[in-house]
This record gives sequence, C-alpha cells and structure tokens, in this order.
Amino acid sequence: MTVDLNSLVNNILAGDRYFLAKLLTLIENDHPQGLDALNLLYPHSGKAHLVGITGAPGSGKSTLVNRLAGYLRNNLLNPTQDGEQYPVTVAIVAVDPSSPFSGGAILGDRIRMRDLAGDPGIFIRSMASRGALGGLAKATSSAVEVLDAAGFSFVLIETVGAGQAEVEIVRTAHTTVVISAPGLGDDVQAIKAGILEIADILVVNKSDLPGADNTLRILQSAISMGYPATQVLPSEDQKGIGTPQWIPPILSVVATTGEGIPDLAEAINGHRQYLDTSGEKIRREHTYMRSRMEQLLGDQLVARFLNDYAGDKFEKALKLVLEREIEPRRAVELLIQDKLS
Amino acid sequence: MTVDLNSLVNNILAGDRYFLAKLLTLIENDHPQGLDALNLLYPHSGKAHLVGITGAPGSGKSTLVNRLAGYLRNNLLNPTQDGEQYPVTVAIVAVDPSSPFSGGAILGDRIRMRDLAGDPGIFIRSMASRGALGGLAKATSSAVEVLDAAGFSFVLIETVGAGQAEVEIVRTAHTTVVISAPGLGDDVQAIKAGILEIADILVVNKSDLPGADNTLRILQSAISMGYPATQVLPSEDQKGIGTPQWIPPILSVVATTGEGIPDLAEAINGHRQYLDTSGEKIRREHTYMRSRMEQLLGDQLVARFLNDYAGDKFEKALKLVLEREIEPRRAVELLIQDKLS
Repeated sequence: MTVDLNSLVNNILAGDRYFLAKLLTLIENDHPQGLDALNLLYPHSGKAHLVGITGAPGSGKSTLVNRLAGYLRNNLLNPTQDGEQYPVTVAIVAVDPSSPFSGGAILGDRIRMRDLAGDPGIFIRSMASRGALGGLAKATSSAVEVLDAAGFSFVLIETVGAGQAEVEIVRTAHTTVVISAPGLGDDVQAIKAGILEIADILVVNKSDLPGADNTLRILQSAISMGYPATQVLPSEDQKGIGTPQWIPPILSVVATTGEGIPDLAEAINGHRQYLDTSGEKIRREHTYMRSRMEQLLGDQLVARFLNDYAGDKFEKALKLVLEREIEPRRAVELLIQDKLS
Repeated sequence: MTVDLNSLVNNILAGDRYFLAKLLTLIENDHPQGLDALNLLYPHSGKAHLVGITGAPGSGKSTLVNRLAGYLRNNLLNPTQDGEQYPVTVAIVAVDPSSPFSGGAILGDRIRMRDLAGDPGIFIRSMASRGALGGLAKATSSAVEVLDAAGFSFVLIETVGAGQAEVEIVRTAHTTVVISAPGLGDDVQAIKAGILEIADILVVNKSDLPGADNTLRILQSAISMGYPATQVLPSEDQKGIGTPQWIPPILSVVATTGEGIPDLAEAINGHRQYLDTSGEKIRREHTYMRSRMEQLLGDQLVARFLNDYAGDKFEKALKLVLEREIEPRRAVELLIQDKLS
C-alpha cells in the first residue's frame, strides 16, 4: 500500500472506485490498515438501505440480483439534497463460501460483469471464504459498512446457500429477500431450510416453469402457519405499509426476462418504509449490533487470554480433552477458573 | 428430572434408550444437569466412528441415511471383545436448522421412524435449532459425544443444507459424505457450494435419473482440479486405502432402491482405515477440538466479562457504535483496554 490512510479514505468518500476496491481487499485480508480506514469511514455510514438476498443454489439468485440492481438504478431517484435528483447507486456484495479450489467467485464475477459492465453507478464485489469459519461473515459486515460510507444508496448482499452462516450474513441487512424456484425439492426439505423466518419478502423465481404454482402454494402455507390470523395471498394490502405487523409478501418473478422485478423493487421500498415508520429499523440494528459486538468481544478476549497468560494451560486442557479425561466445556471452565490440576 | 445423575449416567451406559433420549433433551435445552451427565459420560466416548452426511436440500439425504443405517446394521459385525461378534449399532443425529414454526424436525422423524422402527440397534434423534445461532452446532457436538459414550458403533450426523454452519457441524465427523443429485443446479452454483473441500466421499444420489452422468462429470472435474496429478474415475485403487493421500471417491447411488449402498459402506470403512493408518484421525481430532475449545472459551469469557464488570460499559460502547461514533471492532478494543472515554 503506497497511499496513506487519509487519502485512501478521502478518495473513497469522493467516489473513487479504485481505492474502494483496494480497501475491500485490505479488509478481506484482515490487514490492519483496512480496520484503520474503516474506523475513519464508519461515521459516514448508516444511510444506505441494505438488502440481503438468499436462497438455495439453482434458484437463480445472481440473475435476479443483476436485474434488480439494473432496475433500481434506472428507475429510482435519490431524495434531493441540492434541489436536484440523481439516480440511485447500487453496490452488490456477492458472498461466496466456495473454496479457492473451485474458483467460483472469480467465475461468478466475470458472468456478472458482462451484464452490468459500463455503469459507474453499479459496483460489484465478491467476497470469498478464506479458510476461517466466521471470518467471511466478519469481513462481509465490514465491507458493507465501507460501501455504505462510500455513499451507495442500496447495498445488495447476495449469499449462496441457505445455511446458518448465510442467515448470519443476512442479519446485516434491513430487508431480507428469500428466493425459491420450482423443482428445487419442494417437499418437506423446502420448509426445513430455516430461512423462512428471516424472510421479509419471498420470491418464487423462474415462475414461468412448471411447478411454480406448487412452490407458491408451499410458501403460502408456510407463511400462513407463521402468521395464522392473516390471509396470505400476495395482495396490495399485504405489503404491510402502515400495518402493525409485516406479513412477508410472496412475489412471482422471472429474473431472466425481468418479469416481476418492478414488484420486487416496490416491495423492498414498502418494507423500507415499514421499518422507518414502525421503529423496527432501530430494533433490528440494535439486536444485530449487540450480537456482532459480543462476537468481536469473544474473539478479542480469547486472543488476549491465550496470548497473555494461558497459552500453555490451554494446551494442557486440550490434551486432557483429547485423552478423554475431561469434557471440553468443563475443561474450559476449569481453565478460566485456573483450577486445572 | 426425578432421576439422579448417577443413575441417569449408569442407565445410559447400560444401553437404556429412554434415559438416553431424556439426556439428549437436557442437552438440547442447555440444562446444567445435561452438562454434568455429559462430563461423567465423556471418558467412555471416543470409540464410535462418526460419519457426517451433508448435501443440498432435495438430494435425498434422509432416504440415503436410512438405507445406510439399515445396511451397516445388517451387514457389519463389531470386533470381538468377549469372543463373540455382534451386529454394529447405529445412531442417527439429524441436524435440522428449521424454525419451530415449520415443524420440520418432528415431521422428518415420523417419516424416518416408519422406515427403521422396531430395530433396537438403531437410534434416531433430530436436533432442531432453538434460536441462537451456533447453539445448534454446540448441542450437536455434545449429543454426538453422548451417543458415542452410549456405545453406538456408528454415529451418522445428517445435516440439511450446505452452509458454513453445516460445515462446522460436519467437522465433528471422522468421515464426511457429500451428496449431490442430478437437477439441483449443476452449473456454476454446484461447485460454489463450498463443501467439496470437506468431502471424504462424494455420492451422486438418484443416479438413475437423467442428468446423473452430467452431475458425475462435474464432480469429477471439480475433484481433478483439487487433486490435479491423479486420475479421478471412481475405481478400486481410488478408495485410498494405504495411499499417502486420500482422493475422495465418487459413488453412484440410488437410495430409494438401495443400489450402491454397499459400495458406500465399503468406502466409509476404507476411509476409516485410512484415518487410522495415516495418523490423519489424530490430526483431525486435534484440529477440531482446538477450534471447539476456543469457541467455548470465547463464550465463557464474554459471559464473565459482561457479568463481572463490564455490562454498563458494553452498553455504552454499543450506544456509541449505533450512533456511528466508533466502528464496532475499535469499540470492542477500547472496551477491553478500558479506554472508552
């Protein structure tokens, strides 16, 4: 890094994409200068609307995210500040838990670039897993904060898969969109995915394919189980604006043709208004940040504990556990209490 | 709980299924008596072979796990101790990150019970997520230790989905089986799943369906990228017994008819022998237990830190972060250094 911290930060605030990409790499690599820059940028964050988009592999997430980004960019204007209106800007963070060995992230980026290349108001970044579990979620949160501070109106956080790590990543978001598609195992497994409860908006993508009605029906019945007193057909009054409780609307989309994308954009804006007017936005930020800080606290306390005075004792405890002398949780208790005999 | 700790533990060691189920519930609910019992049982663990089985929703995992359990039970004998040979016993832990609202775990169990009911040598348990992220992985590790101590020859750990939380759960296992099936998005997405690198054995289930050849080819090319110098067709010499490096074999299975299940059982045994003879088993247990203990250490240090003297300061740090004054990681650093102004 030949550039100093202040010019890095100032260039990013001025909209420079080259320095933005550089900082995201520093953050992905957990470089200390990345954290320093993030710290300077952080006070500028908090304005973007963060949209998490998740769903099973094969549900057509990337295509849908590309379409949505293009639609938002071409059809939405930012609220005026200087009397003029500007088209919104959109950042896409594609979180990809693939190994370096599959090369998924790079390939994915190339495919996306072809679709959205040439628009300076759209910025795309893939975050790939680099070994440590949980490291990806942390780097993604920081990357989203940087993009928010850099002034993007929307940050779309796309995650591959539907596991709990993805759920964790999506928690960063204000609005979570869960994508299904016909033919991806619309049986018991589909409602098992454990992501319905985090969905603010449900999308049936590829809704022109056979079986789409069935997927729609399964989602409707799952939602009606979760919100038993309400009717669950996707209708206007269902988008939840001004209602005391948000009922996730279920939207049919064909991402490849763009059909249904305007409805999705509208539902996202509806949810954004709901968050603002209901106080739910503040609650969500509070809950998310508390859990994030507890996790960061855990990481730092462990590093200090091991580094300062308990490295050898930790090794001893580990040995006792591996020899089946003490159960792991008890061993850690004894370690902390300094009672390890 | 009307039974005392010692009789709970002794009954479980004697093979009582009722008390076993009771203890697993205590552990799932994070009840302190569960941990006490686990601590007494732990020295009896370490004998079972732990097999993790994961794959995308719709890949037919449950059917395959049921078939495999039945096959192992009917065809494998335990090494003699008293001169006699007994059929192996099998425990299945189905880890289900569904919400209480979908009821997936209960439904899944009922379907399974129908297939395997009546065999006292097979024990099935679903673990469902109860809110806290990461809690499920912890409860599952403890449940596996209990089942191991209870004397089961094999513990099959089945996870729904392919996210990083599933990867974490599967790390408990000695042998990891990753299941694919035709038609589940065999494109760029398939190799993105991020689980190939943890696979010891790859299975193409539903291999009688159209497209199975294509799935097989994709897996072969993914494996050949990871192990470039070797041939990757599934063949005898590929099962890795005695070879310096284990190359994951790719097996074709039709779980509904049982076709290919004997090969899978053989591959699992082959991998078990590889682990024992190569020293890899000790390395894996060491790596896994170190990361598990670091996580437990983090949980306990945070709880103590917040409880003992930093609760108010934590709230203050959280407030500063939410007001965008300080970046979360910096805030935690200042909190630990007691430098929060």
